[in-house]
Amino acid sequence: MRNSNSIFSHYRFIISIVIGLYALVMIPATSWAEKREFDMSIEDTRIVLVGKRDFHTFAFNGQVPAPLIHVKEGDDVVVNVTNMTTLPHTIHWHGMLQRGTWQNDGVPHATQHAIEPGDTFTYKFKAEPSGTMWYHCHVNVNEHVTMRGMWGPLIVEPKNPLPIEKTVTKEYIMMLSDWVSAWANKPGEGGIPGDVFDYYTINAKSFPETQPIRVKKGDVIRLRIFGAGDQVHSIHTHGHISNIVFKDGFPLESPIKADTVLIGPGERYDVIINMDNPGLWMIHDHVDTHTTNGDKPDGGIMTTIEYEEVGLDHDFYVWKDKKFVPDFYYEESLKKDFGMHNSKVFKGELIEE
Amino acid sequence: MRNSNSIFSHYRFIISIVIGLYALVMIPATSWAEKREFDMSIEDTRIVLVGKRDFHTFAFNGQVPAPLIHVKEGDDVVVNVTNMTTLPHTIHWHGMLQRGTWQNDGVPHATQHAIEPGDTFTYKFKAEPSGTMWYHCHVNVNEHVTMRGMWGPLIVEPKNPLPIEKTVTKEYIMMLSDWVSAWANKPGEGGIPGDVFDYYTINAKSFPETQPIRVKKGDVIRLRIFGAGDQVHSIHTHGHISNIVFKDGFPLESPIKADTVLIGPGERYDVIINMDNPGLWMIHDHVDTHTTNGDKPDGGIMTTIEYEEVGLDHDFYVWKDKKFVPDFYYEESLKKDFGMHNSKVFKGELIEE
Amino acid sequence: MRNSNSIFSHYRFIISIVIGLYALVMIPATSWAEKREFDMSIEDTRIVLVGKRDFHTFAFNGQVPAPLIHVKEGDDVVVNVTNMTTLPHTIHWHGMLQRGTWQNDGVPHATQHAIEPGDTFTYKFKAEPSGTMWYHCHVNVNEHVTMRGMWGPLIVEPKNPLPIEKTVTKEYIMMLSDWVSAWANKPGEGGIPGDVFDYYTINAKSFPETQPIRVKKGDVIRLRIFGAGDQVHSIHTHGHISNIVFKDGFPLESPIKADTVLIGPGERYDVIINMDNPGLWMIHDHVDTHTTNGDKPDGGIMTTIEYEEVGLDHDFYVWKDKKFVPDFYYEESLKKDFGMHNSKVFKGELIEE
Repeated sequence: MRNSNSIFSHYRFIISIVIGLYALVMIPATSWAEKREFDMSIEDTRIVLVGKRDFHTFAFNGQVPAPLIHVKEGDDVVVNVTNMTTLPHTIHWHGMLQRGTWQNDGVPHATQHAIEPGDTFTYKFKAEPSGTMWYHCHVNVNEHVTMRGMWGPLIVEPKNPLPIEKTVTKEYIMMLSDWVSAWANKPGEGGIPGDVFDYYTINAKSFPETQPIRVKKGDVIRLRIFGAGDQVHSIHTHGHISNIVFKDGFPLESPIKADTVLIGPGERYDVIINMDNPGLWMIHDHVDTHTTNGDKPDGGIMTTIEYEEVGLDHDFYVWKDKKFVPDFYYEESLKKDFGMHNSKVFKGELIEE
Repeated sequence: MRNSNSIFSHYRFIISIVIGLYALVMIPATSWAEKREFDMSIEDTRIVLVGKRDFHTFAFNGQVPAPLIHVKEGDDVVVNVTNMTTLPHTIHWHGMLQRGTWQNDGVPHATQHAIEPGDTFTYKFKAEPSGTMWYHCHVNVNEHVTMRGMWGPLIVEPKNPLPIEKTVTKEYIMMLSDWVSAWANKPGEGGIPGDVFDYYTINAKSFPETQPIRVKKGDVIRLRIFGAGDQVHSIHTHGHISNIVFKDGFPLESPIKADTVLIGPGERYDVIINMDNPGLWMIHDHVDTHTTNGDKPDGGIMTTIEYEEVGLDHDFYVWKDKKFVPDFYYEESLKKDFGMHNSKVFKGELIEE
Repeated sequence: MRNSNSIFSHYRFIISIVIGLYALVMIPATSWAEKREFDMSIEDTRIVLVGKRDFHTFAFNGQVPAPLIHVKEGDDVVVNVTNMTTLPHTIHWHGMLQRGTWQNDGVPHATQHAIEPGDTFTYKFKAEPSGTMWYHCHVNVNEHVTMRGMWGPLIVEPKNPLPIEKTVTKEYIMMLSDWVSAWANKPGEGGIPGDVFDYYTINAKSFPETQPIRVKKGDVIRLRIFGAGDQVHSIHTHGHISNIVFKDGFPLESPIKADTVLIGPGERYDVIINMDNPGLWMIHDHVDTHTTNGDKPDGGIMTTIEYEEVGLDHDFYVWKDKKFVPDFYYEESLKKDFGMHNSKVFKGELIEE
């Protein structure tokens, strides 16, 4: 195990005592930041985007997206990462300030040696700032992030949420990405100029294998949209006003009303929408070619909002008999206690060497 | 004719009575929302982008862009659409909230069956919210929207315009799109990963077959810019300050000053510019490769602002002898009464079966 | 020499007298706008992006980026441009309002005849408005701007800087662009649909031949980021909060906090960042495929922030023994007196005919 954090640990221990004494006097016990420790592996994993289109990924805990990490602002997060693949990896905690902990930023050749196959590395950092954050490998990002599924959500709940956040009744994680099928089963290669992106996904699934967003009138939904891939996406929500309230976890001083939200690679937008208009409504990428699977429409980045008031029994509705799989947007996991949440929805098949 | 709106019609009738009674008491007659009914066809139509580069489109009323629909906020809009092509289509009214009228949202497999060849479908909805909206087919958008010309402007005038809107003296509709010439004459195919976009247009014409924007000092122009195609565009206006005032029809809480406006697919930006600097000035896409036609510069998304104060008689000016075609930006139609405005400027040639 | 500015010169002379008399009474001598005159050539120049990847450019003063022009708001700028290449060119002063001087806007076929080989053209304009501006050729922009290196920074210091600007201790110019190696040594060709962009640069260098940003705790840095190429970029800065304060030189009414900044072609964003977190931190394009050189990672648009507090002596650090070349971001030139600053850092090799 290669780990350059021993000095850091010592330092943190002393700091903890100092802050701890201060906290005993000043802060009620319930608000005390907690230490949260998680174990995570990286595994060669086969996932299916849609139909027979499978992909060889390097998946955190064998799933794409990676497990939801849901913590409170100020929590001390510890993640023990074991690399069970045959290639080196790291984890970058995208958006975390890493104040005083730069060697936990997860960049090979800059903040650490990459984690070699078989090795474990421990990341330690404070969850700061709050908001819609994410984590991903930082080795050969052109391949590992673009099309080996090495990304997952890191949601840091704020100590002092905005009033509008408190109105939210349901929230959804939507990680957008792009795939080049030519490299599907050539791990260690791909993500290069000239590549033809031909699959587009929300949480690693293409329509019609995405899942609906189920609501009732009066709900207020929060879409946490991530540009997790290589392409720009333009998310259009039908029949409602999209309130763009946060960018990259930070509240916008002037929130923006829209029906279409442009998202670049690495960006996150939190969009809050009042569910005031019962019906069946599309949410999809308005980059038109991102609604194909290979060379066939309809596919790609597309789903629907389903209001319980109108039901599904409409002869024209493509998903009237669809098997509903909850937690596809981590909407159930987000209601659970803070911690790391694996989801069998995203679990792939282990690839044996 | 397949139309699932009969229940809806009944419901609207009752609502109309209730609102009507209220309106008799509260609102002066002149502001009463009007019913506006239009007939529209979809026709196999050959258009010319530039030079000899023609394209087989499925054109609303045989023109690309489709007819201008110009109504007031709150108007009741009825559109009878007859499909005269050999493929199924719909119309999605992009930006319309469709409150209480979700089955008029125009999405096949979600809100209706697609309109089969020979069939007519009637869309009924309230014009809400106000702003720069548009309409387009929602069947196989990767082909039909991207490169079969199935899009047009829907301008909803606000009941209470912003002060800055009242300063505008001239307004212009600029719908940007992108074409793959490999599919020009293969209707029913195209818009797939790997496609090479090689023509770029404003209102379906490439430079030098676009038209100038003619102004005089003191004018205040409003450019209503639409991302109607598949690519991102970056519109640079020379010699003036671009005030970005609306996005997707909604006023920005904090308007943005710029010289270059990035526009993603599906987005609209309203840019208001004071004409305070006589000269001949370029407006063009700063995505440099979008200023070619096929493999030749200059072309694509490019035009000029011409001030009458400086005239055209400059030996270096490429358009000094150009035949001016008014209404290329619907600037004349926008001054007419509310309603649907066809334009012979955009009329293509009917393709007989 | 072809120059249509003689009338203009006369007019400016009279205006100068009038303003001059006014200024004698009203304005202290030190704030008087100055006339700044520069000579600039355009030369066939070979530059190296990274490793052995050279490129035939048409370089202003034989360098890419072009010389830094650094003036004060209101200055009268005169630039005598001599074209020593075999193809026609112009200079467009992107962002300059050119009030009253439209024939100095540098657009062939619209504001002037292009400058033919061997000819000189004199541009005269007032530096207005202030901010992060740039200049580039406007002939065949799809080739000359996209991949012949014809662009440089024009920084106009404001008369009345914002309070936040006054906190800045160090500033950096980062011009992003994209290259198609297939055309590297075919001047007069390229920049057409179907091109495969395969090199990505900051100030015409790809990682690892970019340079670090060296700071100490307490510094406040200003990154002036330019979309100088053909592609969209998404700049992610690790470990810090990016304050987006200006777009295209104009202050944002509501500045935006972010960790990732999306930049379209032609746009500029000024990002101000407090250096409050010692470490080694990446700044890179989150368009993952933009971090390759040809078909190899790591490369492209990538650099690091190096705090002196942590030093470079870390065995994992790729740049621990790197030769530091100051002024790679014009950070030294920006501290000098106003004027035009050539930089030997960017100087290429003259290509003899």
